[in-house]
Amino acid sequence: MPDLNLLTPKGFRAAGVACGIKTKAGTPDLALLVADVPAAAAALFTTNKFVSPSVILDRRVIRAGRIRAIVVNSGNANACTGAQGLKDAKTMAAIAAKSVGVKPAEVLVGSTGIIGHFLPMEKVSAGIREAAGRLEATPAAAEAFARAIMTTDLVMKMSAAQGPIGAAVVTVAGVCKGSGMIAPNMATMLAYLTTDANIGPAALKAALKAAAEVSFNAITVDGHNSTNDTVAVLASGAAGGPEIASGTPEFAAFSSLLFNVCQELAQKIVADGEGATRVVEVHIEGARSDKDARLAARAVANSPLVKCAVNGGDPNWGRVVSAVGYSGAKMDERKFRHWIGDLLVFDAGMPTGFDRAAAEALMRRPRVLLRVDLGLGSASYTCWTCDLSKEYVSINADYHT
Amino acid sequence: MPDLNLLTPKGFRAAGVACGIKTKAGTPDLALLVADVPAAAAALFTTNKFVSPSVILDRRVIRAGRIRAIVVNSGNANACTGAQGLKDAKTMAAIAAKSVGVKPAEVLVGSTGIIGHFLPMEKVSAGIREAAGRLEATPAAAEAFARAIMTTDLVMKMSAAQGPIGAAVVTVAGVCKGSGMIAPNMATMLAYLTTDANIGPAALKAALKAAAEVSFNAITVDGHNSTNDTVAVLASGAAGGPEIASGTPEFAAFSSLLFNVCQELAQKIVADGEGATRVVEVHIEGARSDKDARLAARAVANSPLVKCAVNGGDPNWGRVVSAVGYSGAKMDERKFRHWIGDLLVFDAGMPTGFDRAAAEALMRRPRVLLRVDLGLGSASYTCWTCDLSKEYVSINADYHT
Repeated sequence: MPDLNLLTPKGFRAAGVACGIKTKAGTPDLALLVADVPAAAAALFTTNKFVSPSVILDRRVIRAGRIRAIVVNSGNANACTGAQGLKDAKTMAAIAAKSVGVKPAEVLVGSTGIIGHFLPMEKVSAGIREAAGRLEATPAAAEAFARAIMTTDLVMKMSAAQGPIGAAVVTVAGVCKGSGMIAPNMATMLAYLTTDANIGPAALKAALKAAAEVSFNAITVDGHNSTNDTVAVLASGAAGGPEIASGTPEFAAFSSLLFNVCQELAQKIVADGEGATRVVEVHIEGARSDKDARLAARAVANSPLVKCAVNGGDPNWGRVVSAVGYSGAKMDERKFRHWIGDLLVFDAGMPTGFDRAAAEALMRRPRVLLRVDLGLGSASYTCWTCDLSKEYVSINADYHT
Repeated sequence: MPDLNLLTPKGFRAAGVACGIKTKAGTPDLALLVADVPAAAAALFTTNKFVSPSVILDRRVIRAGRIRAIVVNSGNANACTGAQGLKDAKTMAAIAAKSVGVKPAEVLVGSTGIIGHFLPMEKVSAGIREAAGRLEATPAAAEAFARAIMTTDLVMKMSAAQGPIGAAVVTVAGVCKGSGMIAPNMATMLAYLTTDANIGPAALKAALKAAAEVSFNAITVDGHNSTNDTVAVLASGAAGGPEIASGTPEFAAFSSLLFNVCQELAQKIVADGEGATRVVEVHIEGARSDKDARLAARAVANSPLVKCAVNGGDPNWGRVVSAVGYSGAKMDERKFRHWIGDLLVFDAGMPTGFDRAAAEALMRRPRVLLRVDLGLGSASYTCWTCDLSKEYVSINADYHT
């Protein structure tokens, strides 16, 4: 559905402008999203114990469950900025609220970029006012919002899904940013979603948590978990119909749309991982418990040796096997099986004598599947990462604070 | 003490030969160490749940507490080789035992190299017999042993320390190998130590565990924990004097010698980490508990973003701070302080406005100190790692199984 965008859900307007936070003139760095009515809202935040002032503020604001606006700047994370940083985040909310005619307590604030520097508040304030004057519900406005939240991203990331829920046609849409410092629990990642579904804050939060667990929380670029990560969703209710309640077929249908959008956005982040040349799907099945499946999957996905092997297109099953071995997950060598794609390469403690050329071809695809069956139970988990390239080192060694 | 070597402790002989396991002809790949009398012995092994047959065998053999010989091959890890692998490990022990006139149950076996391939047993057997015919107690023999256990190591790694214990002069010496797949709990690392101290197996094991915890278990190159890691120490008792008992001043003196040797060997492994250009010491203090200190230190040391920053010589305190933030350790932003070397760069939630040129100079030293005071208690932990370079990716992406 190529025509869907962040503003397809009825009841939202957005804008993105360049206000000079980023060094390069004219680069969009201030984004504003406004709901025509108080939208039901839910949000999830970083689990890092260092959190930016914007997250401190948003955690309070979201409790009310209704939001009118989201204001985001890129180029400066306003993190590790102490009391001044919190004051600046509140000022962003206040200026946005005044500019669009809502209350400061109805505004979420997001920041992403360099940490340890105070926000240039004059530029930010002017940017918010300019954005407020340009609000539209057009595809161009949706794209402007998406571009204005980008930092080291090479591509803009949008996704949307639409389907019938009862008599209504509901759209869920979203944009996100993030390419480095990505780890389970939403590291250096901002995602903003809109929907016109008629759903209350509690059901919305339940749906968001479930969707994030198997999408945003199942991706890792470098195991690093940042200070500002946020995923927020606003529901305008403009699609009409009765309110969607948890545990109903309508809730399942809505959750499915939301999951599809979250999953596509998460996949776009991994594909745009710093220096990434391939996406790796790590699938663990046959685990004794959900926890074991997650431990094993994340150990494989975070292993620099596995990620280098994928970069080199080398079917190095030994690195996968040994990563599961140190993950902490229960395992029995005699029941352990490992496939690259659909090729069984390791069975019951030994390599299978697989066709090496076939295995290499599977390792050189744009998407590589590393699958392990622990043979001990029925729990499974899938996560996604990218390869580790020389380019990743360049980006992160040559990048200077 | 440049003249000390693995065979300075009285009561040992060694040899190292090339028997053709490694592809390049003439490269040493078979090492043998023999104790003149049944030596008190202690060993620690990988915590990976996949273990090589040599580790399975050694875990049984070491229980008796007395060892006469250690036989090690490099170039082939004999890992993921199933029942045949265990048979081959036993054959190595049997041939070594027969060649030097001891019992198979008194022989430890080590293997390191590629995994998933059967050992070429004809070559291995011939190599063991040749080595048995060349046993000597000379510095050249010590070096031959050290060279024959190397794989991707760029430098040979030896260390020794000597001191008085009561009326005796005791020497502790060791050799080790390892440069990739290094992580806490001794990943892809073999270390063999000798001493002429008069100490029993139980006290020896206690001393080894304590020394390894703050040396071999405190280093990480890539967080990867392998299938074959072993550190073993043999004590001949030839230095004389009464048997050293746990909890005595003599035990403390012996432990200190052992720690010095383990620590120097561990440091040499990190310095020779794949692609390493700098050693990084991560020191956490002021933690609420030992566990918190360890969690925080290892999160920093295993962060690819921190390691890339060190590679680029960039004083990127934000990556250190955020790594501690997601480590799971208890922390309070207001009490958190971080130094690069002796330069305070982050204090109470904010950067200090430090001298950037000075910080960069500290980041460009051959040894970089990253120090954090959590300000919450008195527990501390230090670990060591190396930077993450493009060369690391080259080595591990271009290396083919």
